Amino acid sequence: MTEAILLFGDSRRNPTIMWRTGFLAPDPVVYLEVDGTGTLLVNSMELGRARKEAQVDTVRSYEEFGYTARYREAGERHAYAGMVVAALAEKQVDTVRVQPEFPVALARAIEAGDVEVVADKPLFETERRQKREDEQAAIQQTQAAAQAGLTAARELLRDAEVRNGMLYHGGAPLTSAAVKEAIEVVLLQRGCATPEGTIVAGGRGAADPHASDTGHLAAGEAVVVDIFPQHKQTLYYGDITRTLVAGEPSPEWLRMYDAVKAAHAAALAEIRAGANGRDAHLAVCRTLYDAGFSTLVEGFKREGVPAMIHGTGHGVGLEIHEAPRVSDINLELLAGDVVTIEPGLYSPEAGAVRLEDTVVVTNDGCRNLTDYPMEWKP
Amino acid sequence: MTEAILLFGDSRRNPTIMWRTGFLAPDPVVYLEVDGTGTLLVNSMELGRARKEAQVDTVRSYEEFGYTARYREAGERHAYAGMVVAALAEKQVDTVRVQPEFPVALARAIEAGDVEVVADKPLFETERRQKREDEQAAIQQTQAAAQAGLTAARELLRDAEVRNGMLYHGGAPLTSAAVKEAIEVVLLQRGCATPEGTIVAGGRGAADPHASDTGHLAAGEAVVVDIFPQHKQTLYYGDITRTLVAGEPSPEWLRMYDAVKAAHAAALAEIRAGANGRDAHLAVCRTLYDAGFSTLVEGFKREGVPAMIHGTGHGVGLEIHEAPRVSDINLELLAGDVVTIEPGLYSPEAGAVRLEDTVVVTNDGCRNLTDYPMEWKP
Repeated sequence: MTEAILLFGDSRRNPTIMWRTGFLAPDPVVYLEVDGTGTLLVNSMELGRARKEAQVDTVRSYEEFGYTARYREAGERHAYAGMVVAALAEKQVDTVRVQPEFPVALARAIEAGDVEVVADKPLFETERRQKREDEQAAIQQTQAAAQAGLTAARELLRDAEVRNGMLYHGGAPLTSAAVKEAIEVVLLQRGCATPEGTIVAGGRGAADPHASDTGHLAAGEAVVVDIFPQHKQTLYYGDITRTLVAGEPSPEWLRMYDAVKAAHAAALAEIRAGANGRDAHLAVCRTLYDAGFSTLVEGFKREGVPAMIHGTGHGVGLEIHEAPRVSDINLELLAGDVVTIEPGLYSPEAGAVRLEDTVVVTNDGCRNLTDYPMEWKP
Repeated sequence: MTEAILLFGDSRRNPTIMWRTGFLAPDPVVYLEVDGTGTLLVNSMELGRARKEAQVDTVRSYEEFGYTARYREAGERHAYAGMVVAALAEKQVDTVRVQPEFPVALARAIEAGDVEVVADKPLFETERRQKREDEQAAIQQTQAAAQAGLTAARELLRDAEVRNGMLYHGGAPLTSAAVKEAIEVVLLQRGCATPEGTIVAGGRGAADPHASDTGHLAAGEAVVVDIFPQHKQTLYYGDITRTLVAGEPSPEWLRMYDAVKAAHAAALAEIRAGANGRDAHLAVCRTLYDAGFSTLVEGFKREGVPAMIHGTGHGVGLEIHEAPRVSDINLELLAGDVVTIEPGLYSPEAGAVRLEDTVVVTNDGCRNLTDYPMEWKP
């Protein structure tokens, strides 16, 4: 009995392919692992690059498994299925483990060849959580690009003129769209894209944590700037949020800001390998509650005050949201976990505050991949 | 017996979701269609926006199907499965049609509830090919952005200084990366991203049709500029290629250019609803062969001359490469098909030429969504 691990897909839609092969594949590839030995199948156009770049034991061409002949016979799906079945037969595989998201039609084609397909749990989940040093460096590289984008936003807000309480730059209204564009140009110059967007949310609109375009920005109102780009070559994400105010914020908002900053520090103090992510979230909730604000967690709720309405953080890597969550669930942190710490408070009247760093969990605490002042003054 | 169509996924990874619901869903959604009546299930955070934007009969919340309770019980995958099974049971569905790429674990969870899962062919394939007017307009909008990007590239090449045969701009070497950046800044300003990249390939490097970064550009050498952005809101792509030369091209390259331009016109003349896509490809091959060049098609091959080494075109829509292909396969074109026409010639010595428009197939020919001069002089 021979058991194999089988991955199928392109590197963008299936980050586990990128993680396991180190190969940036724009088109679908097949990865087959038997007894720890990995074989990558790619189309003939990618063969040379895959042999240079893929971190696998063997690279082989689709043509060795009759891809083009099968394509002409009955199209792409048929060709992939025939090729996968042939590759499994060659290695005498009778059981394959696939991801739960593996395509059902391909699974059925494999089963029709009397191979059992096991799809009951994610593959490499723990391994993907525990980032190697090169992965941490890639995330830090993207994080540095995000920080440069943040600086572009700060400069626009710092240089803005105020007329009738509204912000202007170069004679034109300073809008959240204009700030976003300035950020994204900097990201582009640093090899990053923003497939999930960028958040520049001002004033009351920022009370929705996912609001992203709130029009003309006003003086004295908080602007949440949340930047989460993906590097186009490494595919690793970064994630940072700062909340900025051009002009003078209200005393109520300043109390919110100080509480979120304290909550952020309280969470960081709870992070280390072996700790429970929930404890970091509870530290955030306790700090905010003690400062007079509300959360979603029993025991730390109040009525009619600004509230924290989301978890404390999430894993970051080849996906912008990946395991582990740092929230009101039991979850042991592992050394190498890269997570955001992003407490926030939201008020329909006073606006929003969110402060976010991305950190890597270590045995005795965490290493902050973010190196950016936590100040509201741009 | 009640049969349903079931789609699962987010709008980016599953363009059929975007097409059928008109809803830009960043996180997975469930779409269920029974007797032509569509129901979209979204998480509670998206409910308001989905009710405004989704072109479906009913929008319902994940919470109506116990999502969060199941999530706390056993995680995300369990929660999705339980919700889908509950939604199917409510409508008394006993057979669901899903896409071949539907997640195998979710299919098995549905089957465990005694519902048959049919995954033998793509859903809505013909419907997605025949673009409605609003889809054609969306593609044309992206195409206009791509054209603006091309103009930025032309301006850099036109204004370049020549020193020792190499191009400089503003005192710095003009590289393919710099041209690409200028293009992508313009695209960004027009609401587009380039998830599949941008090709600016100069000189001999351009002989690989997918080469994208060829360093310092030279005078008199052809630069293939292929721009295929995606609009961030509509998610529709555009696709255009022009080949430009700063300075004086070689006589050999000019012969290639004229042949490709003639092949382009010959292909356009073959395009209309009911025509076979292969005939457009054969018209390209015949034109190039008659001009002394080679192709991959029997009867139109020569040795040792520049050759056309790919198909004539591909469908464009919510994917950059989608049905139909325009190549050496039998395939009837349908009214509303949006396809590229992109003949090219590649020579390791003389460099490359590729010229590409994106057109919509009509009953009596085609409508060109591209409005851009076909000249090599920048």
